[in-house]
Amino acid sequence: MIAHTEYLTMNTKKRYEILDITDEVERVCAKSGLRDGFILVSAMHITASVFVNDHESGLYRDIMTWLEKLAPQDPGYEHHRTGEDNADAHLKRMLLGHQVIVPVTNGKLDFGPWERVHYGEFDGRRPKRILLKALGI
Amino acid sequence: MIAHTEYLTMNTKKRYEILDITDEVERVCAKSGLRDGFILVSAMHITASVFVNDHESGLYRDIMTWLEKLAPQDPGYEHHRTGEDNADAHLKRMLLGHQVIVPVTNGKLDFGPWERVHYGEFDGRRPKRILLKALGI
Amino acid sequence: MIAHTEYLTMNTKKRYEILDITDEVERVCAKSGLRDGFILVSAMHITASVFVNDHESGLYRDIMTWLEKLAPQDPGYEHHRTGEDNADAHLKRMLLGHQVIVPVTNGKLDFGPWERVHYGEFDGRRPKRILLKALGI
Repeated sequence: MIAHTEYLTMNTKKRYEILDITDEVERVCAKSGLRDGFILVSAMHITASVFVNDHESGLYRDIMTWLEKLAPQDPGYEHHRTGEDNADAHLKRMLLGHQVIVPVTNGKLDFGPWERVHYGEFDGRRPKRILLKALGI
Repeated sequence: MIAHTEYLTMNTKKRYEILDITDEVERVCAKSGLRDGFILVSAMHITASVFVNDHESGLYRDIMTWLEKLAPQDPGYEHHRTGEDNADAHLKRMLLGHQVIVPVTNGKLDFGPWERVHYGEFDGRRPKRILLKALGI
Repeated sequence: MIAHTEYLTMNTKKRYEILDITDEVERVCAKSGLRDGFILVSAMHITASVFVNDHESGLYRDIMTWLEKLAPQDPGYEHHRTGEDNADAHLKRMLLGHQVIVPVTNGKLDFGPWERVHYGEFDGRRPKRILLKALGI
């Protein structure tokens, strides 16, 4: 049985950004030696997401526009009384989710044709970590 | 240790549809021989969801009405410049999520009284796959 | 290999409530003897959520206000024709998600600085269960 853990540090240039991290998941898969099982990919900060969707720059912009509509930046959040200004990021991260399980079969990510793992950053410009943990055979 | 994988092909008659797939998860559970562990149920296409909720047709309609309100069909999405017309499906699938972990205890799905696994299709009328992977003892 | 399952019964005083259950996850982690693996934390009722976010009371209120805006209480849901009055709870629970995987490394929850596991109740004032299942080494 295999249990293998790695941490990836993200440091986006922009406050809001979507990045494809599938190559990193493939790298961890290969390094772990996992043949059959799961790789958990999980944002370790509560203002970021990990999600699976299409790698398409138009869709990335659609997602950001949509998140801003459903969970807008606004000075009026109660969370901001603590001195923070990122309540929208806490909500946006809930809409996309903060973790995914990537299935591995025969040593490869067992994905459909368009599935790609993405990191969604909503309060960036500083180092933030993602955990990747392989579990299986 | 058990690792057992199956693929389910969906082909809905309608573009938008919710289907209860719990019986299929139970079938895979029995076939895998899993006594204790997890079954990952994950949509392999990025315009479909897998989620757990009540099996109730009125609620299915409420969910679809609600998704259309929060992530409407609209020709103006940037994703549509690629020739696609399904950006709303990419967003709707994020709201419900694309995968669940079904716990298995004593060889049975370890569910509360109303938990049922559903497939949410937002761009159907063609074959699309779901991965089911059992992992455990 | 370890597979260890526990059930937690929640009984909130209010219909809508957010509670930090991280201490319970830590207790189950210690009791299970898990050194490396996953703990699934999953709401067994379809009107409740389990999610990871910041432990901050202002943010809890922001989340509840936001959920009410996106998935409001309303007598008009079709689900209410069954005699129920909680369709909003079925939708709210989808927005936050109903389960998380907590990674465990070296016998401890492998969390970032602000990650805390929360239970979101949207139809409370009665006993409802959460499943916790540890799987790994």
